[in-house]
Amino acid sequence: MTTVNDPLVHSDLNTPVTDEEIFEAHEGGKLDLAATRPIADARTLSIVYTPGVAKVSLAIAEDPEAAKRYTWTNRLVAVVSDGTAVLGLGDIGPRAALPVMEGKSALFKTFGGLNSIPLVLDTTDVDEIVETLVRLRPSFGAVNLEDVAAPRCFELERRLIEALDCPVMHDDQHGTAIILLAALRGANAVLDRPIENERVVIAGAGASGIACANFLLSAGAGEVTVLDSRGIIHAGRDGLNPVKAELATRTNTSGLRGGLAEALQGADVFVGLSGSTVPEELIATMAPESIVFALSNPTPEIHPEVAARHASIVATGRSDFPNQINNSLAFPGVFRGALDAGARRITERMKLAAAEAIFQVASEDLAPDHIVPSGVDPRVAPEVATAVAKAAAEDGVTG
Amino acid sequence: MTTVNDPLVHSDLNTPVTDEEIFEAHEGGKLDLAATRPIADARTLSIVYTPGVAKVSLAIAEDPEAAKRYTWTNRLVAVVSDGTAVLGLGDIGPRAALPVMEGKSALFKTFGGLNSIPLVLDTTDVDEIVETLVRLRPSFGAVNLEDVAAPRCFELERRLIEALDCPVMHDDQHGTAIILLAALRGANAVLDRPIENERVVIAGAGASGIACANFLLSAGAGEVTVLDSRGIIHAGRDGLNPVKAELATRTNTSGLRGGLAEALQGADVFVGLSGSTVPEELIATMAPESIVFALSNPTPEIHPEVAARHASIVATGRSDFPNQINNSLAFPGVFRGALDAGARRITERMKLAAAEAIFQVASEDLAPDHIVPSGVDPRVAPEVATAVAKAAAEDGVTG
Repeated sequence: MTTVNDPLVHSDLNTPVTDEEIFEAHEGGKLDLAATRPIADARTLSIVYTPGVAKVSLAIAEDPEAAKRYTWTNRLVAVVSDGTAVLGLGDIGPRAALPVMEGKSALFKTFGGLNSIPLVLDTTDVDEIVETLVRLRPSFGAVNLEDVAAPRCFELERRLIEALDCPVMHDDQHGTAIILLAALRGANAVLDRPIENERVVIAGAGASGIACANFLLSAGAGEVTVLDSRGIIHAGRDGLNPVKAELATRTNTSGLRGGLAEALQGADVFVGLSGSTVPEELIATMAPESIVFALSNPTPEIHPEVAARHASIVATGRSDFPNQINNSLAFPGVFRGALDAGARRITERMKLAAAEAIFQVASEDLAPDHIVPSGVDPRVAPEVATAVAKAAAEDGVTG
Repeated sequence: MTTVNDPLVHSDLNTPVTDEEIFEAHEGGKLDLAATRPIADARTLSIVYTPGVAKVSLAIAEDPEAAKRYTWTNRLVAVVSDGTAVLGLGDIGPRAALPVMEGKSALFKTFGGLNSIPLVLDTTDVDEIVETLVRLRPSFGAVNLEDVAAPRCFELERRLIEALDCPVMHDDQHGTAIILLAALRGANAVLDRPIENERVVIAGAGASGIACANFLLSAGAGEVTVLDSRGIIHAGRDGLNPVKAELATRTNTSGLRGGLAEALQGADVFVGLSGSTVPEELIATMAPESIVFALSNPTPEIHPEVAARHASIVATGRSDFPNQINNSLAFPGVFRGALDAGARRITERMKLAAAEAIFQVASEDLAPDHIVPSGVDPRVAPEVATAVAKAAAEDGVTG
């Protein structure tokens, strides 16, 4: 039986997904390594292992740059997590984070054509995580940081970008921000209105909430108001951590105070990144032609069918409802483009280019229930990669 | 043109291996990751990623043991190196070690059916390497330590075994020792004589030399004498490091002194693990029906065709000569057996069982030029795995 309160068993796909099916699909893990050429005879063994391999090792010893050509690392993303903010499930630890990291690796391969290795860490100390990845630096070509709790994730990402000469991106922040902006561009194109006129309310001041606020402001949003568990973030509030205090200087310029009721009254866009719930009555107080993005996973802030009674456009983070706003549309192409370009880091321009590329794919057949491409649309990652690589060259961060 | 002095281009295989062929085979690396099921539709995405994956993460959060069943880690070997003793090439650094580690991963998959990830470390500090792997512990199921210089490798392996509750093996030590013993059993079966009557000379007191000496003594060798770059190791020698001083108490019981000439005079078995060369004149002084294992890679201590003028049985470490004594016959099955059994560590009994299993496969068609199975014989790893798993259960190190 399907009910609104049990979205994990709800599915608008042809057949409901069962627990048995989910666990069966995870039996033994979701990844498999293969040799690029089978070692079936002594001759091949002598080419890919001793003695032949010595020639390649010596070539890299003479010129370390040759490792980019003759090893898999230049196309290899380390998918790194400490398991402190897994999906909407919270701090469930590195082992429990592994299925998510394996899923990301599967998506990296399927859509970005990139190899990756899930590395989950039994430490939550920023110094130790940075130190660990610096030591492992020769083993990979880029770092996808994942499911690390805020506000620690901000410092961790900043420190990793400083310490590693390769693309580093905390996907919960920037992957989410990229696909959110792409979706908002799609919704605004359907509703024929500019982002500059919109008042956006973001529930959740974790990794993705903060990053989305910053990115929407970069993209020109009229006003952005962010709420955490204590309510609206404003400059006059006591006890803000440094990240939120900084955010308060650039958001909520009209000085709203209070909670979600005060924030949503007359708002144009709601972005749920909180892991909590939003009552239907509050959605009903938003402006006409409102947009509701209830993105918490696995349980959206409000069931999309309920939100649709009041909002013109509704999206969730789930693949089993229409309009999935899921960063799986962003990260494979972003990393592929960055690695293709030989980028040393991922810039704001590269992220904006990624959002624009996703929107361009969707714009071919926009509709209220199709503001973003499908999460399995194979056109997206190559378009994103091309746009990101071009932006990297424009920013001069390549080579 | 093929000459005895250029073994890298010498090949007794049908076509000589060219540099072009070697580098072409390494283009882009030798490994490729795949998703166990393709993500071609939204339904599969909802099973292997959000929202389905949350069910699996929660199950592991409730019972960490479930990670062994529902992630790839229980069949995943971390292939770890700091690049300080790569093949016979020495300290060429972690990036230059990568092609060897990728080759090992390819062999793990091809013969052991195991996944693995090459992790090369930009540090040579034992504390730091141990610390790094402890932090990464939830990411893998076993550690194959590789190409770490002696004597640091002995402390590193000991410390890792203490710190990690999973199989850890320095393959240059124990993989080499296992296949060496298997080969010596094969040679002795051909020559119909027992190991107990043999005087064995090992040139090289690095990782593999020390481990082979210890393992041959475990297996009952009559006498073992080890040489380093300064000559025969004996208890009266000044300046021995602690590892060599300990070795001197159990080897060279007849008190030989001097160099290779003194050691080889009348010896039954020569094991070259030194990276240096041995003149033909010295091989000529060995006992009748001598055995020469010139195992240095990529260049054997003496060309096998030259050694065969004096020795009854000759072997090298290379896949392009007969009798390849290469640890690729050992490590895939050893780790597969240890992981199949759920072993917490790798014991002496498990290693002896591995050597016996390799010998048993070879014993089906023993000959002077076939004392070990071919390096690509698919029967070996499953036999080794079965024997190792059985020995693990007998030793009570499982579960």
